[in-house]
Amino acid sequence: MFSPVAPPDTAAAAAARARQDTLTKPRGALGRLEDLSVWVSSCQGHCPPVQFERARIVVFAGDHGVARLGVSAYPSEVTSQMVANIASGGAAINALAEIAGATVRVVDLAVDAEPSSDQIGAYKVRRGSGNIAVEDALTEQETREAIDAGRRIADQEVDAGADLLIAGDMGIGNTTAATVLVAALANVEPVAAVGYGTGIDDAGWARKTSAVRDAMFRVRPVLGEPVATLQCCGGADLAGLAGFLAQAASRRTPVLLDGIAVTAAALVAEQLAPGARLWWQAGHRSTEPAHALALAQLGLDPIVDLRMRLGEGSGAAVALPVLRAAVATLSSMATFADAKVTDRAPPS
Amino acid sequence: MFSPVAPPDTAAAAAARARQDTLTKPRGALGRLEDLSVWVSSCQGHCPPVQFERARIVVFAGDHGVARLGVSAYPSEVTSQMVANIASGGAAINALAEIAGATVRVVDLAVDAEPSSDQIGAYKVRRGSGNIAVEDALTEQETREAIDAGRRIADQEVDAGADLLIAGDMGIGNTTAATVLVAALANVEPVAAVGYGTGIDDAGWARKTSAVRDAMFRVRPVLGEPVATLQCCGGADLAGLAGFLAQAASRRTPVLLDGIAVTAAALVAEQLAPGARLWWQAGHRSTEPAHALALAQLGLDPIVDLRMRLGEGSGAAVALPVLRAAVATLSSMATFADAKVTDRAPPS
Repeated sequence: MFSPVAPPDTAAAAAARARQDTLTKPRGALGRLEDLSVWVSSCQGHCPPVQFERARIVVFAGDHGVARLGVSAYPSEVTSQMVANIASGGAAINALAEIAGATVRVVDLAVDAEPSSDQIGAYKVRRGSGNIAVEDALTEQETREAIDAGRRIADQEVDAGADLLIAGDMGIGNTTAATVLVAALANVEPVAAVGYGTGIDDAGWARKTSAVRDAMFRVRPVLGEPVATLQCCGGADLAGLAGFLAQAASRRTPVLLDGIAVTAAALVAEQLAPGARLWWQAGHRSTEPAHALALAQLGLDPIVDLRMRLGEGSGAAVALPVLRAAVATLSSMATFADAKVTDRAPPS
Repeated sequence: MFSPVAPPDTAAAAAARARQDTLTKPRGALGRLEDLSVWVSSCQGHCPPVQFERARIVVFAGDHGVARLGVSAYPSEVTSQMVANIASGGAAINALAEIAGATVRVVDLAVDAEPSSDQIGAYKVRRGSGNIAVEDALTEQETREAIDAGRRIADQEVDAGADLLIAGDMGIGNTTAATVLVAALANVEPVAAVGYGTGIDDAGWARKTSAVRDAMFRVRPVLGEPVATLQCCGGADLAGLAGFLAQAASRRTPVLLDGIAVTAAALVAEQLAPGARLWWQAGHRSTEPAHALALAQLGLDPIVDLRMRLGEGSGAAVALPVLRAAVATLSSMATFADAKVTDRAPPS
């Protein structure tokens, strides 16, 4: 379905690193901002980098049969209600996108309701994914359809001019499926990975952990086969996210990852399209334990850590201005020569 | 010089906390953003809070006689060159301010050169402060003049409509003076507080540590007397910052603190105007060890942690969009009732 992905441009990265060292500040004094500016340069293939003009957030929505086991603090009907809320601009991601200078699109891949509009439902695979504790999330055909939907959505956005993509999620029960993917792929026990999601109580946590354990048992034989993994324990929304993230990288478009759902899908996307992860940065670290595990697997260091646990792309949206700040320093600061600032150490 | 400062409005804080719990997201899911939105509401005295319209960064510049001991990687002439660079828009803080939607002002309180303009030099106290390893930074009169300059600058900015203030610093040698203030006030040994500043080598670090030790010995008898402390081991720029931070709080204006120089001044400002610290948030954590000590003394938790060590207000400027994001969620998200989203836990 995907080929291995070529890395971002190393010559542009080297030029960016060299240029950072000519800017009017002590070398290295901008810390992570310098690294991020180099990464953006390498993704864009030139130095200095250009500020993002069309940052786009795509929220993948879907319901999960496992929610029937009481693994979430909210009922499944909230998924479709929140899709409508995002579409009408009332959700957290809308407020955060405006601050970050990004726009928001929500796509319904597997919400357990009629799509709220033809546009939102254009890539719908089914109503709700299976209860992964006892059955496959999807058929193989549905899985391929969902991955392909994600791929086509990435193509649409890149073709429309998106120069930075943020992936987001909305779906009651999706942290359960995501946790299964992460715990299975990182090879850790369920108790080390299961978190409190939207805010379940201890009894809910125990039910969730039990469901994760059952699903992990089911998925073990197919680990290493990304399509089969998503079919067994993903869901159409997570499969769509995986296709989206793999294709964004294939299209040489940088991505900010969000929380546990997106990052779990990213783990599978890296299997689908090896090398894709070099096109991603981790927007934030969520409070879900599996999220830190997934970031470690991908070798990604989160930009912010604000105890967020909302999904929707919200953590990545908060990180976007930091990425913009990194670009701004490299593209608009004066050099020592320009500004006639002395660049030397005093005699020791 | 200052009175104790009344805390931000607790009724507005309570209203903000209650409103956060009605918004379409799991309670607490926005993490630190929720806390910050409550803080802004309490500073503004109403809920929901209003987005910042006039965020203003003021950079306090000054030279330090202690730089003659070889405690910095750069010569003192860089201070006046960088003041000119900031004034002409080429420094990191200019690039970061633009991303954050803030404007920048630089004031020369003690640069060891003629002021680059009448406006920048309007509050100038002297050319360079004393070498604190062996002599007072300032006379008592100069200290009071510098604190008063900071106070008047804060008044000017608030009277001109600033609704958020960021304090920044520029001055070769200022991390040495700042480290003395922090180590003395936090009662730690020099080796636990001294960092590499703009990027000194190990020999430079040893010279800096020695200077810090000598200055700490000199300041010990006057700790607890903020004016005398600044006179002994501060500098006109740090004294100005202390007056600015104390007055901003007195004028009920929220402040984002930056790195070690600003936060050291904040420690003294809290002595000048007890309670002022409730009007401040820590923008970031720098790599300077003394910075973390100062934040702990003030009970402040940094918003971002990006390995920055530049000063100028740069870390606070990177944090400003996070604060804006916090305000945006509380002021523009839909409530469960507005959006007709189900707000209940499923039966367990």
